[in-house]
Amino acid sequence: MFSGALQDLVDELGALPGIGPKSASRIAFYILNAETADVDRLIAALSAVKQRVHFCERCFNVAEEPLCAICQDARRDQVLICVVEEPKDVLALERTREYHGLYHVLGGAIDPIGGIGPDQLHIKDLIRRVGAEPVEEVILATNPNIEGEATASYLSRTLRTLEIPVTRLASGLPMGGDLEYADELTLSRALEGRRSF
Amino acid sequence: MFSGALQDLVDELGALPGIGPKSASRIAFYILNAETADVDRLIAALSAVKQRVHFCERCFNVAEEPLCAICQDARRDQVLICVVEEPKDVLALERTREYHGLYHVLGGAIDPIGGIGPDQLHIKDLIRRVGAEPVEEVILATNPNIEGEATASYLSRTLRTLEIPVTRLASGLPMGGDLEYADELTLSRALEGRRSF
Repeated sequence: MFSGALQDLVDELGALPGIGPKSASRIAFYILNAETADVDRLIAALSAVKQRVHFCERCFNVAEEPLCAICQDARRDQVLICVVEEPKDVLALERTREYHGLYHVLGGAIDPIGGIGPDQLHIKDLIRRVGAEPVEEVILATNPNIEGEATASYLSRTLRTLEIPVTRLASGLPMGGDLEYADELTLSRALEGRRSF
Repeated sequence: MFSGALQDLVDELGALPGIGPKSASRIAFYILNAETADVDRLIAALSAVKQRVHFCERCFNVAEEPLCAICQDARRDQVLICVVEEPKDVLALERTREYHGLYHVLGGAIDPIGGIGPDQLHIKDLIRRVGAEPVEEVILATNPNIEGEATASYLSRTLRTLEIPVTRLASGLPMGGDLEYADELTLSRALEGRRSF
Protein backbone atom coordinates (compact mmCIF):
# COMPACT_ATOMS: atom_id res chain seq x y z
CA MET A 1 0.00 0.00 0.00
CA PHE A 2 1.18 3.47 -0.85
CA SER A 3 0.62 6.44 1.41
CA GLY A 4 -3.05 7.37 1.89
CA ALA A 5 -3.78 9.85 -0.91
CA LEU A 6 -1.80 7.97 -3.55
CA GLN A 7 -3.49 4.66 -2.69
CA ASP A 8 -6.91 6.37 -2.79
CA LEU A 9 -6.13 7.53 -6.32
CA VAL A 10 -4.93 4.05 -7.36
CA ASP A 11 -8.23 2.64 -6.02
CA GLU A 12 -10.37 5.23 -7.81
CA LEU A 13 -8.52 4.78 -11.10
CA GLY A 14 -8.72 0.98 -10.76
CA ALA A 15 -12.53 1.29 -10.62
CA LEU A 16 -12.61 2.73 -14.17
CA PRO A 17 -13.39 0.28 -16.99
CA GLY A 18 -10.36 -1.41 -18.55
CA ILE A 19 -7.88 -0.13 -15.94
CA GLY A 20 -6.25 -2.86 -13.86
CA PRO A 21 -4.17 -2.38 -10.70
CA LYS A 22 -0.89 -2.04 -12.66
CA SER A 23 -2.21 0.65 -15.01
CA ALA A 24 -3.86 2.40 -12.08
CA SER A 25 -0.60 2.73 -10.20
CA ARG A 26 1.23 3.74 -13.38
CA ILE A 27 -1.30 6.51 -13.99
CA ALA A 28 -1.23 7.57 -10.33
CA PHE A 29 2.56 8.08 -10.52
CA TYR A 30 2.15 9.94 -13.76
CA ILE A 31 -0.34 12.26 -12.02
CA LEU A 32 2.07 12.70 -9.09
CA ASN A 33 4.83 13.84 -11.45
CA ALA A 34 2.62 15.77 -13.90
CA GLU A 35 2.36 19.54 -14.07
CA THR A 36 -0.41 20.82 -11.78
CA ALA A 37 -1.93 22.66 -14.76
CA ASP A 38 -2.30 19.35 -16.67
CA VAL A 39 -4.02 17.65 -13.75
CA ASP A 40 -6.26 20.68 -13.29
CA ARG A 41 -7.31 20.39 -16.94
CA LEU A 42 -8.20 16.71 -16.41
CA ILE A 43 -10.20 17.59 -13.28
CA ALA A 44 -12.01 20.39 -15.14
CA ALA A 45 -12.82 18.04 -18.04
CA LEU A 46 -14.25 15.44 -15.65
CA SER A 47 -16.45 17.92 -13.89
CA ALA A 48 -17.55 19.61 -17.14
CA VAL A 49 -18.80 16.28 -18.50
CA LYS A 50 -20.85 15.66 -15.37
CA GLN A 51 -22.23 19.21 -15.37
CA ARG A 52 -22.79 19.94 -19.02
CA VAL A 53 -23.23 16.71 -21.01
CA HIS A 54 -26.64 15.07 -21.04
CA PHE A 55 -28.66 13.00 -23.48
CA CYS A 56 -30.68 14.59 -26.28
CA GLU A 57 -34.40 14.72 -25.43
CA ARG A 58 -35.33 13.54 -28.88
CA CYS A 59 -32.71 10.99 -30.01
CA PHE A 60 -30.70 10.26 -26.80
CA ASN A 61 -27.39 11.12 -28.42
CA VAL A 62 -24.99 13.06 -26.19
CA ALA A 63 -25.84 16.76 -26.02
CA GLU A 64 -24.86 19.87 -24.09
CA GLU A 65 -28.26 21.48 -24.77
CA PRO A 66 -31.76 19.93 -24.61
CA LEU A 67 -31.33 18.78 -28.23
CA CYS A 68 -28.08 17.39 -29.68
CA ALA A 69 -26.20 19.14 -32.49
CA ILE A 70 -27.67 16.78 -35.10
CA CYS A 71 -31.29 17.21 -33.97
CA GLN A 72 -30.75 21.01 -33.93
CA ASP A 73 -29.48 21.02 -37.51
CA ALA A 74 -32.44 21.81 -39.80
CA ARG A 75 -30.40 20.77 -42.88
CA ARG A 76 -30.45 17.10 -41.77
CA ASP A 77 -32.94 14.93 -43.62
CA GLN A 78 -35.89 14.80 -41.17
CA VAL A 79 -37.53 11.73 -42.76
CA LEU A 80 -34.70 9.26 -42.06
CA ILE A 81 -33.99 7.76 -38.63
CA CYS A 82 -30.91 5.61 -38.15
CA VAL A 83 -31.19 3.47 -35.00
CA VAL A 84 -27.91 2.75 -33.19
CA GLU A 85 -26.94 1.22 -29.86
CA GLU A 86 -24.60 3.86 -28.45
CA PRO A 87 -23.57 7.51 -29.02
CA LYS A 88 -20.18 6.30 -30.29
CA ASP A 89 -22.00 4.56 -33.15
CA VAL A 90 -23.41 7.95 -34.19
CA LEU A 91 -19.83 9.15 -34.35
CA ALA A 92 -18.79 6.18 -36.50
CA LEU A 93 -21.60 6.84 -38.97
CA GLU A 94 -20.93 10.60 -39.04
CA ARG A 95 -17.33 9.86 -39.99
CA THR A 96 -18.55 8.25 -43.24
CA ARG A 97 -20.07 11.65 -44.27
CA GLU A 98 -22.60 9.57 -46.24
CA TYR A 99 -25.59 9.79 -43.92
CA HIS A 100 -27.51 13.04 -43.55
CA GLY A 101 -30.62 11.92 -41.65
CA LEU A 102 -31.40 11.78 -37.93
CA TYR A 103 -30.44 9.20 -35.32
CA HIS A 104 -32.06 7.36 -32.45
CA VAL A 105 -29.73 6.00 -29.76
CA LEU A 106 -31.17 2.98 -27.95
CA GLY A 107 -28.66 3.04 -25.09
CA GLY A 108 -27.64 -0.60 -25.65
CA ALA A 109 -28.99 -3.79 -27.17
CA ILE A 110 -31.42 -6.48 -26.05
CA ASP A 111 -29.44 -8.98 -23.98
CA PRO A 112 -31.56 -11.40 -21.92
CA ILE A 113 -28.46 -12.86 -20.22
CA GLY A 114 -27.27 -9.40 -19.17
CA GLY A 115 -30.82 -8.53 -18.02
CA ILE A 116 -31.41 -5.93 -20.75
CA GLY A 117 -34.91 -6.15 -22.22
CA PRO A 118 -36.73 -3.76 -24.58
CA ASP A 119 -37.96 -1.70 -21.62
CA GLN A 120 -34.41 -0.82 -20.57
CA LEU A 121 -33.76 0.70 -24.01
CA HIS A 122 -35.21 3.81 -25.69
CA ILE A 123 -37.54 1.68 -27.86
CA LYS A 124 -40.85 3.18 -26.70
CA ASP A 125 -39.39 6.61 -27.48
CA LEU A 126 -38.51 5.42 -30.99
CA ILE A 127 -42.05 4.19 -31.60
CA ARG A 128 -43.43 7.50 -30.33
CA ARG A 129 -41.05 9.39 -32.68
CA VAL A 130 -42.01 7.25 -35.66
CA GLY A 131 -45.69 7.99 -34.89
CA ALA A 132 -45.18 11.75 -34.38
CA GLU A 133 -42.47 12.66 -36.93
CA PRO A 134 -42.73 12.51 -40.76
CA VAL A 135 -40.49 9.42 -40.91
CA GLU A 136 -40.13 7.64 -44.26
CA GLU A 137 -37.47 5.06 -43.40
CA VAL A 138 -35.96 3.55 -40.27
CA ILE A 139 -32.43 2.18 -40.77
CA LEU A 140 -31.43 -0.42 -38.19
CA ALA A 141 -27.71 0.03 -37.49
CA THR A 142 -27.33 -2.08 -34.36
CA ASN A 143 -24.13 -4.14 -34.18
CA PRO A 144 -23.89 -7.31 -36.32
CA ASN A 145 -23.55 -9.56 -33.24
CA ILE A 146 -26.05 -11.71 -31.31
CA GLU A 147 -27.48 -8.86 -29.19
CA GLY A 148 -27.54 -6.36 -32.04
CA GLU A 149 -29.23 -8.83 -34.40
CA ALA A 150 -31.81 -9.73 -31.73
CA THR A 151 -32.51 -6.03 -31.22
CA ALA A 152 -32.84 -5.37 -34.95
CA SER A 153 -35.21 -8.29 -35.34
CA TYR A 154 -37.32 -7.14 -32.36
CA LEU A 155 -37.46 -3.59 -33.76
CA SER A 156 -38.41 -4.71 -37.27
CA ARG A 157 -41.31 -6.77 -35.85
CA THR A 158 -42.42 -3.86 -33.64
CA LEU A 159 -42.18 -1.26 -36.41
CA ARG A 160 -43.97 -3.44 -38.99
CA THR A 161 -47.37 -2.49 -37.48
CA LEU A 162 -46.58 1.19 -38.16
CA GLU A 163 -46.11 0.48 -41.87
CA ILE A 164 -42.81 2.37 -42.13
CA PRO A 165 -40.07 0.91 -44.38
CA VAL A 166 -37.39 -0.62 -42.16
CA THR A 167 -33.92 -1.42 -43.52
CA ARG A 168 -30.82 -3.01 -41.99
CA LEU A 169 -27.15 -2.16 -42.69
CA ALA A 170 -25.56 -4.68 -45.06
CA SER A 171 -23.39 -7.44 -43.62
CA GLY A 172 -20.52 -8.86 -45.64
CA LEU A 173 -16.79 -8.80 -46.18
CA PRO A 174 -15.02 -5.79 -44.69
CA MET A 175 -13.29 -3.66 -47.35
CA GLY A 176 -9.56 -4.26 -47.53
CA GLY A 177 -10.10 -7.65 -45.92
CA ASP A 178 -9.03 -11.02 -47.24
CA LEU A 179 -11.50 -13.76 -48.18
CA GLU A 180 -9.19 -16.34 -46.65
CA TYR A 181 -9.39 -14.73 -43.21
CA ALA A 182 -13.13 -14.03 -43.14
CA ASP A 183 -15.07 -16.09 -40.57
CA GLU A 184 -17.78 -18.47 -41.88
CA LEU A 185 -20.66 -16.32 -40.64
CA THR A 186 -19.37 -13.19 -42.38
CA LEU A 187 -18.73 -15.16 -45.55
CA SER A 188 -22.21 -16.71 -45.58
CA ARG A 189 -23.73 -13.24 -45.00
CA ALA A 190 -21.63 -11.91 -47.90
CA LEU A 191 -22.91 -14.73 -50.16
CA GLU A 192 -26.50 -14.27 -48.99
CA GLY A 193 -26.35 -10.51 -49.65
CA ARG A 194 -24.57 -10.75 -53.03
CA ARG A 195 -25.55 -8.14 -55.62
CA SER A 196 -25.42 -8.18 -59.42
CA PHE A 197 -22.25 -6.64 -60.75
CA MET B 1 -15.82 14.27 -32.62
CA PHE B 2 -18.20 14.26 -29.69
CA SER B 3 -19.74 17.41 -28.26
CA GLY B 4 -17.21 19.81 -26.71
CA ALA B 5 -16.97 18.75 -23.07
CA LEU B 6 -17.03 15.02 -23.81
CA GLN B 7 -14.33 15.34 -26.46
CA ASP B 8 -12.21 17.42 -24.07
CA LEU B 9 -12.42 14.59 -21.54
CA VAL B 10 -11.52 11.99 -24.20
CA ASP B 11 -8.47 14.11 -25.10
CA GLU B 12 -7.38 14.54 -21.47
CA LEU B 13 -7.80 10.83 -20.70
CA GLY B 14 -5.98 9.89 -23.90
CA ALA B 15 -2.95 11.85 -22.67
CA LEU B 16 -2.55 9.50 -19.67
CA PRO B 17 0.01 6.70 -20.03
CA GLY B 18 -1.32 3.44 -21.46
CA ILE B 19 -4.72 4.87 -22.43
CA GLY B 20 -5.41 4.86 -26.17
CA PRO B 21 -8.27 6.66 -27.95
CA LYS B 22 -10.65 3.66 -27.61
CA SER B 23 -10.12 3.28 -23.85
CA ALA B 24 -10.35 7.05 -23.45
CA SER B 25 -13.78 7.20 -25.05
CA ARG B 26 -14.91 4.11 -23.12
CA ILE B 27 -13.89 5.74 -19.84
CA ALA B 28 -15.45 9.08 -20.86
CA PHE B 29 -18.82 7.35 -21.41
CA TYR B 30 -18.43 5.54 -18.12
CA ILE B 31 -17.89 8.92 -16.43
CA LEU B 32 -20.94 10.35 -18.23
CA ASN B 33 -23.13 7.55 -16.88
CA ALA B 34 -21.48 7.25 -13.46
CA GLU B 35 -22.96 8.56 -10.20
CA THR B 36 -21.86 12.15 -9.54
CA ALA B 37 -20.58 11.05 -6.11
CA ASP B 38 -18.22 8.51 -7.73
CA VAL B 39 -16.81 11.10 -10.12
CA ASP B 40 -16.44 13.57 -7.24
CA ARG B 41 -14.40 10.97 -5.36
CA LEU B 42 -12.11 10.53 -8.37
CA ILE B 43 -11.70 14.31 -8.69
CA ALA B 44 -10.94 14.61 -4.96
CA ALA B 45 -8.37 11.80 -5.18
CA LEU B 46 -6.63 13.49 -8.13
CA SER B 47 -6.42 16.82 -6.39
CA ALA B 48 -5.36 15.27 -3.04
CA VAL B 49 -2.40 13.57 -4.73
CA LYS B 50 -1.26 16.86 -6.24
CA GLN B 51 -1.73 18.75 -2.98
CA ARG B 52 -0.56 16.27 -0.37
CA VAL B 53 1.84 13.74 -1.89
CA HIS B 54 5.48 14.71 -2.27
CA PHE B 55 8.81 12.93 -2.16
CA CYS B 56 10.57 12.12 1.12
CA GLU B 57 13.41 14.59 1.83
CA ARG B 58 15.69 11.77 2.86
CA CYS B 59 14.97 8.76 0.64
CA PHE B 60 12.73 10.19 -2.15
CA ASN B 61 9.99 7.65 -1.55
CA VAL B 62 6.44 9.05 -1.76
CA ALA B 63 5.41 10.87 1.41
CA GLU B 64 2.62 13.08 2.72
CA GLU B 65 4.95 14.67 5.30
CA PRO B 66 8.56 15.86 4.93
CA LEU B 67 9.73 12.29 5.70
CA CYS B 68 8.03 9.13 4.40
CA ALA B 69 6.43 6.59 6.74
CA ILE B 70 9.48 4.30 6.53
CA CYS B 71 12.02 7.05 7.33
CA GLN B 72 9.81 8.15 10.24
CA ASP B 73 9.73 4.66 11.71
CA ALA B 74 12.50 4.43 14.34
CA ARG B 75 12.12 0.61 14.50
CA ARG B 76 13.53 0.25 10.96
CA ASP B 77 17.14 -0.86 10.81
CA GLN B 78 19.00 2.44 10.29
CA VAL B 79 22.24 0.83 9.04
CA LEU B 80 20.81 -0.76 5.88
CA ILE B 81 19.92 1.18 2.72
CA CYS B 82 18.21 -0.59 -0.14
CA VAL B 83 18.55 1.37 -3.41
CA VAL B 84 15.60 1.08 -5.83
CA GLU B 85 14.57 2.81 -9.03
CA GLU B 86 10.99 3.81 -8.22
CA PRO B 87 8.61 4.14 -5.24
CA LYS B 88 6.66 1.13 -6.54
CA ASP B 89 9.78 -0.99 -6.01
CA VAL B 90 9.69 0.00 -2.31
CA LEU B 91 6.17 -1.37 -2.25
CA ALA B 92 7.25 -4.65 -3.87
CA LEU B 93 10.02 -5.13 -1.31
CA GLU B 94 7.75 -4.19 1.60
CA ARG B 95 5.31 -6.89 0.49
CA THR B 96 8.00 -9.54 1.14
CA ARG B 97 8.00 -8.50 4.86
CA GLU B 98 11.63 -9.64 4.86
CA TYR B 99 13.39 -6.30 4.71
CA HIS B 100 13.41 -3.97 7.70
CA GLY B 101 16.01 -1.40 6.71
CA LEU B 102 15.69 1.95 4.92
CA TYR B 103 15.39 2.76 1.22
CA HIS B 104 16.78 5.20 -1.28
CA VAL B 105 14.69 5.85 -4.39
CA LEU B 106 16.78 6.94 -7.38
CA GLY B 107 13.85 8.13 -9.48
CA GLY B 108 14.80 5.93 -12.47
CA ALA B 109 17.84 4.21 -13.91
CA ILE B 110 20.81 5.31 -15.99
CA ASP B 111 19.72 5.22 -19.62
CA PRO B 112 22.04 7.06 -22.05
CA ILE B 113 19.64 6.49 -24.97
CA GLY B 114 16.75 8.01 -23.01
CA GLY B 115 19.00 10.88 -21.89
CA ILE B 116 19.07 9.82 -18.20
CA GLY B 117 22.54 10.16 -16.69
CA PRO B 118 23.65 9.91 -13.03
CA ASP B 119 22.90 13.61 -12.50
CA GLN B 120 19.19 13.13 -13.32
CA LEU B 121 18.91 10.55 -10.50
CA HIS B 122 19.19 10.94 -6.72
CA ILE B 123 22.71 9.50 -6.71
CA LYS B 124 24.50 12.49 -5.15
CA ASP B 125 21.90 12.38 -2.35
CA LEU B 126 22.71 8.70 -1.81
CA ILE B 127 26.42 9.41 -1.51
CA ARG B 128 25.69 12.23 0.92
CA ARG B 129 23.50 9.87 3.01
CA VAL B 130 26.12 7.13 3.04
CA GLY B 131 28.65 9.71 4.28
CA ALA B 132 26.35 11.18 6.94
CA GLU B 133 24.35 8.18 8.22
CA PRO B 134 25.71 5.13 10.10
CA VAL B 135 25.30 2.90 7.03
CA GLU B 136 26.77 -0.62 7.16
CA GLU B 137 25.47 -2.05 3.89
CA VAL B 138 24.01 -0.71 0.66
CA ILE B 139 21.80 -3.22 -1.19
CA LEU B 140 21.43 -2.49 -4.90
CA ALA B 141 17.91 -3.47 -5.92
CA THR B 142 17.67 -1.82 -9.33
CA ASN B 143 15.87 -3.88 -12.01
CA PRO B 144 17.73 -6.82 -13.57
CA ASN B 145 17.62 -5.26 -17.05
CA ILE B 146 20.17 -3.28 -19.08
CA GLU B 147 19.48 0.10 -17.44
CA GLY B 148 19.18 -1.35 -13.93
CA GLU B 149 22.41 -3.34 -14.30
CA ALA B 150 24.25 -0.30 -15.65
CA THR B 151 22.98 1.75 -12.70
CA ALA B 152 24.01 -0.93 -10.19
CA SER B 153 27.44 -1.15 -11.71
CA TYR B 154 27.86 2.66 -11.69
CA LEU B 155 26.74 2.80 -8.04
CA SER B 156 29.04 0.01 -6.92
CA ARG B 157 32.02 1.78 -8.51
CA THR B 158 31.01 5.10 -6.96
CA LEU B 159 30.40 3.64 -3.48
CA ARG B 160 33.63 1.61 -3.46
CA THR B 161 35.61 4.73 -2.51
CA LEU B 162 33.45 5.09 0.63
CA GLU B 163 34.43 1.60 1.78
CA ILE B 164 30.86 0.52 2.54
CA PRO B 165 29.84 -3.08 1.73
CA VAL B 166 27.67 -3.04 -1.40
CA THR B 167 25.48 -6.04 -2.34
CA ARG B 168 23.17 -6.78 -5.26
CA LEU B 169 19.88 -8.73 -5.24
CA ALA B 170 20.37 -12.29 -6.55
CA SER B 171 19.43 -13.04 -10.15
CA GLY B 172 18.22 -16.52 -11.08
CA LEU B 173 15.22 -18.64 -11.81
CA PRO B 174 11.93 -17.21 -10.57
CA MET B 175 10.24 -19.43 -7.97
CA GLY B 176 7.42 -21.51 -9.40
CA GLY B 177 9.00 -21.11 -12.83
CA ASP B 178 10.00 -23.82 -15.23
CA LEU B 179 13.60 -24.43 -16.32
CA GLU B 180 12.40 -25.12 -19.84
CA TYR B 181 10.85 -21.67 -20.19
CA ALA B 182 13.67 -19.64 -18.64
CA ASP B 183 15.53 -17.39 -21.07
CA GLU B 184 19.26 -18.02 -21.60
CA LEU B 185 20.36 -14.94 -19.65
CA THR B 186 18.33 -15.87 -16.58
CA LEU B 187 19.58 -19.43 -16.77
CA SER B 188 23.24 -18.38 -17.07
CA ARG B 189 22.76 -16.03 -14.10
CA ALA B 190 21.23 -18.90 -12.13
CA LEU B 191 24.22 -21.12 -12.96
CA GLU B 192 26.70 -18.36 -12.17
CA GLY B 193 25.05 -17.67 -8.82
CA ARG B 194 24.64 -21.34 -7.79
CA ARG B 195 24.98 -22.06 -4.09
CA SER B 196 25.99 -25.24 -2.25
CA PHE B 197 22.95 -27.25 -1.22
